[in-house]
Amino acid sequence: MDKRPIGVFDSGLGGLTAVRQLMEQLPGEDIIFFGDTSRVPYGTRSQETILKYSRQDINFLMQFDIKAIVIACNTADTAAGAIVQREYDLPICGALRPAASVAARTTKNNRIGVIGTSATIRAGGYEAIIRELRPEAQVKSVACPLLVPLVENHRYQRGDRAVEIITGEYLEPLRDWGCDTLVLGCTHYPLLWDVISAYMGPDVTLINSGREAARALAGTLREADLLSGRDGGGVCRYYVSDAPEGFVEMASLFLQRPVEHQVEQIDIERY
Amino acid sequence: MDKRPIGVFDSGLGGLTAVRQLMEQLPGEDIIFFGDTSRVPYGTRSQETILKYSRQDINFLMQFDIKAIVIACNTADTAAGAIVQREYDLPICGALRPAASVAARTTKNNRIGVIGTSATIRAGGYEAIIRELRPEAQVKSVACPLLVPLVENHRYQRGDRAVEIITGEYLEPLRDWGCDTLVLGCTHYPLLWDVISAYMGPDVTLINSGREAARALAGTLREADLLSGRDGGGVCRYYVSDAPEGFVEMASLFLQRPVEHQVEQIDIERY
Repeated sequence: MDKRPIGVFDSGLGGLTAVRQLMEQLPGEDIIFFGDTSRVPYGTRSQETILKYSRQDINFLMQFDIKAIVIACNTADTAAGAIVQREYDLPICGALRPAASVAARTTKNNRIGVIGTSATIRAGGYEAIIRELRPEAQVKSVACPLLVPLVENHRYQRGDRAVEIITGEYLEPLRDWGCDTLVLGCTHYPLLWDVISAYMGPDVTLINSGREAARALAGTLREADLLSGRDGGGVCRYYVSDAPEGFVEMASLFLQRPVEHQVEQIDIERY
Repeated sequence: MDKRPIGVFDSGLGGLTAVRQLMEQLPGEDIIFFGDTSRVPYGTRSQETILKYSRQDINFLMQFDIKAIVIACNTADTAAGAIVQREYDLPICGALRPAASVAARTTKNNRIGVIGTSATIRAGGYEAIIRELRPEAQVKSVACPLLVPLVENHRYQRGDRAVEIITGEYLEPLRDWGCDTLVLGCTHYPLLWDVISAYMGPDVTLINSGREAARALAGTLREADLLSGRDGGGVCRYYVSDAPEGFVEMASLFLQRPVEHQVEQIDIERY
């Protein structure tokens, strides 16, 4: 048993959809969340920049005597996950491998679609893992650069014509191709679940990468006997790198519950 | 006469619409452009962060023995313009005051609309300057946070339904209110000129803040006898803070001409 907190970081606040999953699956765990709001989005940056930022994010979290880290950002996990897992001496769990594994197990027709930011898709991390786990599966990936700004501007509901048009344009090649499994390879996308699911139809299984990251972490902690041993009462503390104006509203959107604790601003460039 | 280059900076590449105007109005001037692509967008950041970034951008440009600076970013000008003008000993020309002055002179019905990023609109810089120059004018401002990501994803043309819907939603209160003058308070927006102008109708005068910044700078250089004295042949050199992949394509979009010189990546956090 280990009562130390779990550290979670994201390029912005979308990763709070993974925190929500952690709270549901591991309600007795304390969480330290860091959202790099002064440097969001990572999705348009180079691999070298994302690696540098991810190391700083981890260095900040390491101050809190954490027992494990979740990279709640597919872009950061893609660009930096494997490297930081070698560099730091604690379990670091990304979203990519857990979501890719579920996709590889789920597909029946061997056609898996993946959507994500430009950086995630360009790096091809999902394809590589799925090819390793299920060589007969084909993967088609589509970068959807406008979905993050849409969600962050509270535009993700069915009936919003602009959202439906843009999402439909991105998804059309995947639907036409006939994938039966679609990985939502960005922690913002679970908010678009209804729009995406309505467009793709009932025969396509959607995979929430944040939920799979939380499941994978729960498994890792259980195996290593690192769970807190509590059934509830876990507390989440929030840190961001830009002014926290508007944080509570945006965070409640991604957590789908009220934010109970205060948020604090830190200077991430010091780490 | 002064053959030193003019420095221009922007949070990203949208400011190249102002560089385009400089090239047209002052074809004999050399230009050093810096686009802070590793930290774009500034529009969602706090005033304090934008000020820090703007100082670093200027410190980088100062290395080139420049004779003047254009802040080709309404967000940076709003948050930092007046402060850096006091701190640095060379002419620094923003987009805000020139565009606000033209708006104040142009309106006949004293109703001026302003559109811009969230940070530009929240700071209220346009209202303050217009009120000072023409106290009887009313100003209505609307933040349009999705227009920058749309333009950066090459979505700005008439006939693009999603762009027309989103732009129309932002502009509807301004059209209904009956403004006869509309300031495009972001250097990305000139690409949306046709969409905005079709929606607002022929009786509304649109003001391109980048063009007015270039005009103001031309006036300042002329008065201080700082023009190069050449009629053409000016060269523009480009620097960015993130990997320059995709730069040529995006830059040509904003410049509306091919990029003739190479781009170089620099580490802006060193400045």
